[in-house]
Amino acid sequence: MVGGMLSKNTVKFIKSLHQKKYRVESGKFFVEGEKSVIEVLQSGFMVDLLLVTKEFATKNTSLLTGIKAEVLFVTASQLEQVGQYQSNDSALAVVQMKPNEAFFPEEGELILALDEVRDPGNLGTIIRIADWYGIKKLIFSPHTAEFYNPKVIQSSMGSFTRVHFYYGELAKAFQEWKLPVYGAFLEGVSIYKLTNPTPGVLLLGNESQGISKEMEKWVSSKVTIPSFGKAESLNVAIATAIFCDNFKRLVHQ
Amino acid sequence: MVGGMLSKNTVKFIKSLHQKKYRVESGKFFVEGEKSVIEVLQSGFMVDLLLVTKEFATKNTSLLTGIKAEVLFVTASQLEQVGQYQSNDSALAVVQMKPNEAFFPEEGELILALDEVRDPGNLGTIIRIADWYGIKKLIFSPHTAEFYNPKVIQSSMGSFTRVHFYYGELAKAFQEWKLPVYGAFLEGVSIYKLTNPTPGVLLLGNESQGISKEMEKWVSSKVTIPSFGKAESLNVAIATAIFCDNFKRLVHQ
Repeated sequence: MVGGMLSKNTVKFIKSLHQKKYRVESGKFFVEGEKSVIEVLQSGFMVDLLLVTKEFATKNTSLLTGIKAEVLFVTASQLEQVGQYQSNDSALAVVQMKPNEAFFPEEGELILALDEVRDPGNLGTIIRIADWYGIKKLIFSPHTAEFYNPKVIQSSMGSFTRVHFYYGELAKAFQEWKLPVYGAFLEGVSIYKLTNPTPGVLLLGNESQGISKEMEKWVSSKVTIPSFGKAESLNVAIATAIFCDNFKRLVHQ
Repeated sequence: MVGGMLSKNTVKFIKSLHQKKYRVESGKFFVEGEKSVIEVLQSGFMVDLLLVTKEFATKNTSLLTGIKAEVLFVTASQLEQVGQYQSNDSALAVVQMKPNEAFFPEEGELILALDEVRDPGNLGTIIRIADWYGIKKLIFSPHTAEFYNPKVIQSSMGSFTRVHFYYGELAKAFQEWKLPVYGAFLEGVSIYKLTNPTPGVLLLGNESQGISKEMEKWVSSKVTIPSFGKAESLNVAIATAIFCDNFKRLVHQ
């Protein structure tokens, strides 16, 4: 770790990472704020560049010892200039994306599948929920929000470091896996009435359209969250949480 | 219903309602988008002024017949100019706030209490969740986000019309009501282990601080959402949903 200065080119480069185009081009994204930066440094992600304030460096000397990333000392106002946070007095990391590698579920594992969830805040919240419920593998349809969007990273609260995800054709994966697919629908069997559900895939759909007609064919069990009032629907992240909660409760009972 | 033109003063007035100061001063707020405007027109709220596009008026003639509000015909771009939505091709309503009236719980009723929830998006989502689970009464500590904030209205998806809420000292209300208070804590009894819980108050705390020390004294049962993974916490709206879901399941079993 050697502390250098922040150059104009570096500022320009980090700012470019606010746009998907430049993230994809460079294969890099950024992570900001104390908690998330500490988590990404302790994860399997490769950090290329780390901007830290003196305060962050002092509090986290052991974490920075022997670090491979280039480390630059900056002020809080420099962090706020390059990042998206309105206030950040700790750190920002430029990190390498991981390759988009398919996974195969293990026996008894619960998998989360998202069919065109578009809002980055929803995706980040869903990743945090998955991490809370110990769901380690997520598959996203090709047009689901981008995992490396700064808002996804922010709303996942560090959980983005602990999940294995990939973007791919859901139908192809479901065909290979041969697992039950539980789909969240407004009409389906009450999730309270499931007994000993075989673990498999929990499928959640788009914010306004729900699960697409194309994917509906792959659903082996249509399940629904009982309603006791008059709201027409629940936000997709809320629905994900309630599905995960009920499944985990039933499987662990 | 008489269709008039949108004056500069009206534009200025509606724009002022983006700020809390002017909402409080005028006792008015605005609601935008087709679904929410239709719901507010069908609710107990008093609509003062309604901006509608020709398309909205044509689709909703019966709703506009005999309406007391002043109705102005506008274009989509005029709606977008005065509101907060990036796209709105239907309607915007200026609505009177309701008086801040205390309620008293009925027997067997589940009440939601928020202790300093600050984010308007969270508050709106929580209102939508309450409406889904048939929870009709909510009490908010004085510094909880403002109910009439446009982001609260937007994220409640019309559910703001169906709840009775008031801002007041939680301690005072709890003392009066003499009901069990279930507080969401990271350490507490697993919510899966509650059996036949007596309905009462579900208390949720601030996004980063949780339930305040002051309010903790009023909690008769500390309950927690079991975790199976590594995320340190859940978003407060997510936690609210899981609490409501488990309570409703247990009470209705």
